[in-house]
Amino acid sequence: MNSQPLGIFDSGVGGLTVVKAVRDLLPHESIVYLGDTARLPYGSKSPETIRQFAEEDVRFLISRGVKAIVVACNTASAHALSALQANHNLPIIGVIEPGVDAALADPACQRVGIIATRGTIRSHAYQHALALRRPDLLILEQPAPLLAPLIEENWLDHPATIAALQTYLQPLLDRGMDTLLLACTHYPLLVPTLQKLLGPDIRLVDSATTCAQHLQTHLASLDLLAPAENTPTFDLFLTDLSEQFELLAARFLNSPPLQAKRVELS
Amino acid sequence: MNSQPLGIFDSGVGGLTVVKAVRDLLPHESIVYLGDTARLPYGSKSPETIRQFAEEDVRFLISRGVKAIVVACNTASAHALSALQANHNLPIIGVIEPGVDAALADPACQRVGIIATRGTIRSHAYQHALALRRPDLLILEQPAPLLAPLIEENWLDHPATIAALQTYLQPLLDRGMDTLLLACTHYPLLVPTLQKLLGPDIRLVDSATTCAQHLQTHLASLDLLAPAENTPTFDLFLTDLSEQFELLAARFLNSPPLQAKRVELS
Repeated sequence: MNSQPLGIFDSGVGGLTVVKAVRDLLPHESIVYLGDTARLPYGSKSPETIRQFAEEDVRFLISRGVKAIVVACNTASAHALSALQANHNLPIIGVIEPGVDAALADPACQRVGIIATRGTIRSHAYQHALALRRPDLLILEQPAPLLAPLIEENWLDHPATIAALQTYLQPLLDRGMDTLLLACTHYPLLVPTLQKLLGPDIRLVDSATTCAQHLQTHLASLDLLAPAENTPTFDLFLTDLSEQFELLAARFLNSPPLQAKRVELS
Repeated sequence: MNSQPLGIFDSGVGGLTVVKAVRDLLPHESIVYLGDTARLPYGSKSPETIRQFAEEDVRFLISRGVKAIVVACNTASAHALSALQANHNLPIIGVIEPGVDAALADPACQRVGIIATRGTIRSHAYQHALALRRPDLLILEQPAPLLAPLIEENWLDHPATIAALQTYLQPLLDRGMDTLLLACTHYPLLVPTLQKLLGPDIRLVDSATTCAQHLQTHLASLDLLAPAENTPTFDLFLTDLSEQFELLAARFLNSPPLQAKRVELS
């Protein structure tokens, strides 16, 4: 048992969908969240820049006394996870392996579509992890760079979002996709729209929920779960503050308005 | 006469629409362009962060020996221009005054719509400059945060872009807009789509063209124009490199593919 907080970071506030999933599953855990809003988005940046930013994010969380870290950012998980794990001496979990596990948990899964930012797709991290486990799998990748901005506008079922989804998904549907992996922490908010568009025959796998489940198992195996008598705290740090970020944060967390603290990384 | 280069900067590559307009009008000028792609977009960041970034951008350009600077970024012009002018001893021009001048050049202009990023609208810089000159003007402001991402995808007449434009423009049309000010350097690429959507009765004013005209007048008045025998050079610096940025840069400049150099600001 260990009542130190968990550290969770993302390039922005999208990773709060992971915080929400973790709180739902592990309500006794304290959490320190860092959103690097001054430098978002990571998805369009180069791998070396992403690794440098992720390293700074992790150092900040370690300075706050966290017991384990979740990289709640697909781009950073793709490009920086192994470097972070090599550099630091505490458990660091990404969002990719849990998503891949969940997609393959159904043995009927034959044709997996992946939607994500351009950076995540270009990293081939999901494609690589899926192919290693199931060489016969058909993997259909689709960069969907406009979905995160559309979600940040709360245009969850706006005609522009439907038109963008149709353009992104049609090539995957044409090739018989049976499972769609939502490889960006923003995308869980699109699940109702996607269910309506795709119907019941296509399975949706989202990285926030699957990451929380993986974290629970991992913490339990290391005896790092917080005791039931722990009074959980939640600290929200952002590298740049704005009303818009606080509004978005509350929406991603599905919570009342909350106050963020500004932090400078160096 | 002065053959030193002009410095032009933006948060990303959108400001290259200004470079294109300057080259069309002033073909003898050498240009050093800086795009702060590692930290884009500025539009969602706080005023103090934007001022700090803009100061670093200007220092870099000065270190390259420029004779004058264009802030080819509406967000930075809105929040940082007066601080930059106070801190530095060379001509620094923004994109706001030229756009306002051009909008008001037609005395028939009564109802001006402004579309821009959230940061530019929130700054009220355009609204303020317009109202100072023409207190009777009806000013209709509309944040349009998704247009820049849609343009970066080259979805210039995609159904998603049309749907977004309809949502953004309908409230302005309902209030009788006669002039639409495109207050973001990305937006000149949408002119054909906007002309189709809005018809011939609504005048479009874009900040790239108007800024180049203003620059010409200003340089001439200070005797800083390059001599006709100058062999112009063009240097493109970005704080983060990616194929995507080089592709976009060529598209905004309407030029063949070009090579950017990476620079770190500090």
